Amino acid sequence: MAGLQKVKSEETRKRVLGAAVDLMEEGGLDAVQIRSVAERAGYSVGSVYKHYADIDALIIAVNSITLERIHQVMRNATEGLETPIDRLKALAHAYSEFSRENPKLWKGLFDHHLPESRSIPEEHKLANVALLSLIGGELKALDPSMGEDELAARTRTCFGAVHGLVTISLEERFAGLSGDTLSSELDFLVQRLAEA
Amino acid sequence: MAGLQKVKSEETRKRVLGAAVDLMEEGGLDAVQIRSVAERAGYSVGSVYKHYADIDALIIAVNSITLERIHQVMRNATEGLETPIDRLKALAHAYSEFSRENPKLWKGLFDHHLPESRSIPEEHKLANVALLSLIGGELKALDPSMGEDELAARTRTCFGAVHGLVTISLEERFAGLSGDTLSSELDFLVQRLAEA
Repeated sequence: MAGLQKVKSEETRKRVLGAAVDLMEEGGLDAVQIRSVAERAGYSVGSVYKHYADIDALIIAVNSITLERIHQVMRNATEGLETPIDRLKALAHAYSEFSRENPKLWKGLFDHHLPESRSIPEEHKLANVALLSLIGGELKALDPSMGEDELAARTRTCFGAVHGLVTISLEERFAGLSGDTLSSELDFLVQRLAEA
Repeated sequence: MAGLQKVKSEETRKRVLGAAVDLMEEGGLDAVQIRSVAERAGYSVGSVYKHYADIDALIIAVNSITLERIHQVMRNATEGLETPIDRLKALAHAYSEFSRENPKLWKGLFDHHLPESRSIPEEHKLANVALLSLIGGELKALDPSMGEDELAARTRTCFGAVHGLVTISLEERFAGLSGDTLSSELDFLVQRLAEA
């Protein structure tokens, strides 16, 4: 009986999380509220709280799902590519495409900030680091002599640079880039950062 | 009499805006509410609405002040520097320092999004473009043969790249860079993007 309850409870958690992901996808960060998630999932507000201590915990769980999805599309994008530079460019393009195809999930990732007093769960930090390590692996392949600290810094520079170009491209007020121009600028950026 | 009223009204507007800037500086985006601004400025809620149609209009006015301040520190940073590359590096460092010294004003700039149905006031877009043109001027000096479209795209790539590195450095979850490492990575990034 205890085993069955555990299975049921896990199923509830998954449906709650799935409902929260759907709401973020449709309406962005503001649409994800304990009440709206409970309604969408077909459970009581109390059931949601049984699995997630508060709205911040739930949003972080949604954002972890988003990170997993980004990780997946980035990894898939490098398949079959033979040089580290080609793979780095493919990673950048996959990241950019994800942001355009899933603007609300992607924005939720960066617009959500925990209250200053709370620290980010270790698991969520690891999901971010896993994403970075896709880039770090290619940089290391390009220059195996790179020390650990240098590699860590350079990985963040490359991710940050691509992330920033993608970010301002999505913002109307910067008259951001799109289409072929964005695509060729991403290539330019990666080429310049990665070349020896 | 009409003239005196105009002066008074302008003084009210300035005090309201000043109060909103102070609140953003102290408590971030969430601290800027029509009621809290009215209280801080010593006016009624109605007086605030006389000058700003709603909270979004007021936040955009605060963000325009932030942009002016960033523009100022960036321009000052290039004074006396003789090469475009040195000036580009100084622009990047000044931008980075502003974000560290004024994290809440800086975050307010990027975390605020207008409802999808509303477009960004032309004046606010121009303030963003003015910032970009500091970079564009140096890129043009480096390569006077660059066409207008290429220059516009490259300017956004350079700004976006630096902006992104600065952004992820401020986020705990990326184990972002700081201090000397951030500083030398900014130099590396600008050098790579700007060199012929």
